[in-house]
Formats: sequence, C-alpha cells, structure tokens
Amino acid sequence: MSVKKMILDVDTGVDDAMAIAYAIADPAVELIGILSSYGNIEADRAADNALKLLHLLHEDDVPVFLGETDPVDHKYQRIDINAQIHGENGIGDVELEEVTRPVENEDGVDFLIESAKKYGKDLTVVATGPMTNLAAAIEKDHDAMKMIGDITIMGGALTVPGNVTPCAEANIEQDPVAANELFTSDLTVTMVGLDVTYRTLLTKKETKLWRETGSEAGIKMADIVDYYIDVYADIYPELGGCSLHDPLAVGVAIDPTFVTLLHMNMKVTTEHDAYYARTIGDKARLNDPTTNVRVAVDVDKERYLEVFMNLFLELFNKLK
Amino acid sequence: MSVKKMILDVDTGVDDAMAIAYAIADPAVELIGILSSYGNIEADRAADNALKLLHLLHEDDVPVFLGETDPVDHKYQRIDINAQIHGENGIGDVELEEVTRPVENEDGVDFLIESAKKYGKDLTVVATGPMTNLAAAIEKDHDAMKMIGDITIMGGALTVPGNVTPCAEANIEQDPVAANELFTSDLTVTMVGLDVTYRTLLTKKETKLWRETGSEAGIKMADIVDYYIDVYADIYPELGGCSLHDPLAVGVAIDPTFVTLLHMNMKVTTEHDAYYARTIGDKARLNDPTTNVRVAVDVDKERYLEVFMNLFLELFNKLK
Repeated sequence: MSVKKMILDVDTGVDDAMAIAYAIADPAVELIGILSSYGNIEADRAADNALKLLHLLHEDDVPVFLGETDPVDHKYQRIDINAQIHGENGIGDVELEEVTRPVENEDGVDFLIESAKKYGKDLTVVATGPMTNLAAAIEKDHDAMKMIGDITIMGGALTVPGNVTPCAEANIEQDPVAANELFTSDLTVTMVGLDVTYRTLLTKKETKLWRETGSEAGIKMADIVDYYIDVYADIYPELGGCSLHDPLAVGVAIDPTFVTLLHMNMKVTTEHDAYYARTIGDKARLNDPTTNVRVAVDVDKERYLEVFMNLFLELFNKLK
Repeated sequence: MSVKKMILDVDTGVDDAMAIAYAIADPAVELIGILSSYGNIEADRAADNALKLLHLLHEDDVPVFLGETDPVDHKYQRIDINAQIHGENGIGDVELEEVTRPVENEDGVDFLIESAKKYGKDLTVVATGPMTNLAAAIEKDHDAMKMIGDITIMGGALTVPGNVTPCAEANIEQDPVAANELFTSDLTVTMVGLDVTYRTLLTKKETKLWRETGSEAGIKMADIVDYYIDVYADIYPELGGCSLHDPLAVGVAIDPTFVTLLHMNMKVTTEHDAYYARTIGDKARLNDPTTNVRVAVDVDKERYLEVFMNLFLELFNKLK
C-alpha cells in the first residue's frame, strides 16, 4: 500500500477534529502538516485546537501552520451559528490539555506551495474550511499548486439545499471569491459537499463505543462529538445524527470509491444576491471537452461508516 | 423489439415539434395520443400546432386531446420570452397546412388515466410542458397513474442554472405546484432537465441535411428549427447551437442509456421568493431508503445526436 502524504487545511471545528483523527488513524496516510484556516472559529484558535488535538492523539510531531485569517474581500467575523454548532471554543466546549508547542513560523500558504514542489503528485491536500488558503497559493504559485496529486474539499451543495441559505454551504459562504477562483482554475478538485455529507451520519451509539475503549483520546473525542450530535438533534432533527462533513472529505481523498463522482465545470456565485455562494454548473463551460471538478453526488454510506468506525476504534485502542 | 405505447404531453413549441417527430420516427414507439398543454403557447394553439405537425408527418390517425389550460394556482399568461424563442405561432412562425380535424372531445387528463388503466406498465408518458396534466391525473386517479410503466419529463435544472431565473427552468416555472406534487408523489419520474439538454445541440449543418431530403416534412421542420437556432445564437451564443430539450426527453424514455441517472428524492420550491420553481434534493427525504426521481446529470451527446439524426433523416426520406 502506498502511503499518501497529506496536508489538512482545517478551521478546527468539531468535524475538522474528526478529519484530523481520520487522517491519523488511517495507515494509508502520512499527515505531513496542518494548515489552520478561519471559519468555524478564528484561525489562531483553530490552530490552537489543532495543536491540542494532535497532542491528544499522540502526534506532537505534526507541524501546524497559520494560513490566511480572512476571506479575500472582507474581514472574518464569527457568526453565531458557528458558535452554536461547534461550541464557544470550536470543539464542543470540551477542555483539552494545554500545549506549549507553538504554531510554525513559516506561513501556511508557503508551506503548502513548498510541499507541492517537494512532493508533487504524491501530495494530497484536503481542505475542510474556506478555500482562502488554496486560492492564495494558486495566486502565488499556480505552477506548483498544479503539481499536487489530489485536492479534495469539503464544501458546497449541488443537488441539495445549502446550510447557510437555500443556495449556500458554510465553507463556500465564508469566501465565495476564493472558492470561485479554485473552481474556475485549471486545477482538478474533488468536491465533497452537503450532497453526500448529509447522508453520512454519526449517533451516540457510535461515540459510546469510542468511550468504551477507555482511552483518553476516545473519551475526549466522544465528548466533543456528542456536543455536535446534540446540536444536530436540535437543528436538523430530520437527519437522525450528526453529519460527518470533514472526515468524509478525508475518506474520499484516500478512497474515492466511497462516492459517485460527477465530472463537470463549476462556478461559485460571488454577486451579493439570493444566490450568493451557490456552487453550480458553469454554463459557459458546460460543453468544454475537459472538466476540472469532480462532485460527489452519492455515497456508499454503510461502507464509509464501517471503515470510519474501524479506524477510530483501532486508533483509540492503540492509544490506551 | 417491443414497441412502447407512448403519450406525449406537449406545449407545442419548436422543440415539442421535434419531440413529436422523434416519437413518430422511432420504430420502437407507437404514439397513441398527444395531450396538449399550455406553456410555450396557449393550450388550444398548442393543440392546433400538434394537429398540423401530425398532418405534415402523415400521422393524421394520432388523436390530439386538450389537457389543462392553466397552472394549478393562477391563470396562464404567455410571457414575451416564449413568443421570442418559439415565434408568435409557437412553431417558428412557419406556416403549416391548415387541418380540418378537430381535437378529441374526451378530456386529455381522462385520456391519460384511461390509457394508464388500459396499458399499465406498457405505457410510456413523456411530458415536455408544465406538469399540470400529470398532477391533475394523479389527483384524480392516483392508482391508475401509479400503473404507468415510465414517466419522463423535460423540465428542471439540478446542477446548472435555470433558464427563467438562476434557479428556475421554464416548464417547472409555469407550474411549480404541479411539479412539486409529481416529485413528492410515489410515482417514479425520470427528469431530463437543462443539466443534459444544454449539452445536446443542433446546428444548421444538421437541419440542412433535413432540407436536402427534398421532402415537405424535412423542409418545413428545417424552417421551424432554423428559427429556433437563430434565437439561440442570439440569446445563448455560448452554447453554439439550439438545445434539443424535448426530443432528448423522448430519446431517454426510449433508451435511458443515453444519460447518466442520479436516483434521489426531490422537491420543487413553491414559495414566491428568489428560489421559486427550483428543482432540488428534498432534505427531509434525503436518507429515505427509497427514491422516486431519476435525474439525468450527464449525456452521451455524440451517440444521442447520431441516433436523432438517423431517425429524422429516415423519416423525412420515407415521407418524400
């Protein structure tokens, strides 16, 4: 089995926390660094959460970089719904052990570009926050970014309604300009959006099993995710669990056969109207012979959840 | 080869005219009747167009019925864009020979229900106008309609922008209430929307071949469609041809392998806001084990166009 060198670009967040755990748990992945973005929470606090989670998961060697801290065209402001969904501290208001290790001095976007140059097609990037870092890196060194083997994002909603407005999904809505730059670039992108993440659901039945491993990591992760499950029960009672948004993106980056991919050219609406931040087919490029976005439109949720649970339980048992 | 008994529910329209010709041209189809709807033009004028086209195509035995003449919740009013796209008379302002044959006395919705009872799973219904007739028939006799073998509609836009608003496609926008009743019923529906019809394009290179058959039918159909091609060049220059909306729906009803189908549950937005008449995944039924809508999200356009052209040329040559 070839091991994928992976960079996670996260706004840590409860489901980002699961994305980090998934990347660590899967032996097919070597997590070479984490880029901290803003969104669910401010970038510096997201970085702090990432450092604490890595410590919880015994991975203090994985470097954490600070990426862009604001959307392309305005200052970031945390919205109430993010605090509600992810807790005041971003990780379900669960207290994790403080770490003394700081974020790296190197700029996160530069780390991304350097890694692209160093590893090329062997590099996998998974972005589960806004697309600001990716857009900044493309702007700064398009040719390096073009060399990356795989870019998978959690974001957007093509065949289902958004979660911020009927058209807009949260990660895209944070920075539609950056997302549009990514989608209309010539880089190949796999979009794992609400189309599939609304279908991969976790309940307390599963987190109970994490808790029962008796490991600190399993217990704390269960505490974090239970907060999220409670919020989902309140806000999205029709789903019957919490969405595995960000960890599904990591799963798809490792094994795209979890999902059905539709190949198309897309754009993001950047006009400030009712369709703001909509991810939709780009009519002007609909009949282009080449396409650069692969949208996940269906998911083998049973198989994904089985793999997800096996990986998490193995990890937590190992860390006992 | 088993022959499909087909009813077309059309608002004749230039592309409806091609849908009628396709159904007649394909030996796999027995066209048992045409239901006239409103939309591109008023229902009575659509019926008159259908009668004239059947006469042009030597099919004076196919009965034409008048269906519903107005949307569920308001009176039909022809909008300027319809007159612009389809011509003042609905068929590219081309004059066809007057026919003395009237529409049938039987109500179109009753004909649909009676046919459903008579032929059951051997019946294929293709609706290329608003869904008003289908919704009325379901309302009147759900159990009969449930017996129909295949219902394929031209309408909606899931992965691409609409053609009336960024969210709304014209057939759905005529009567979103009816479309929503159809989509949220337990009838299985195949949706052939702008997702695929924006990709199946015809140019004057092809209509020139119809004209060169020397048949009255080929020449008149070329005149009708050339009008449409000119309008498309004006309104949608980025496409490079006119969309084969309605005839693609007929093609898919006969051979679904022309398209890639995504199985899901859908709804239509009926609130009068910016998302009015949007066809989108129904979040409340996203994780239901059963789905009733099959949405065409990609199309083998080369193969479809080849089959389309072969059928049309054979038909026009036969009618010389």
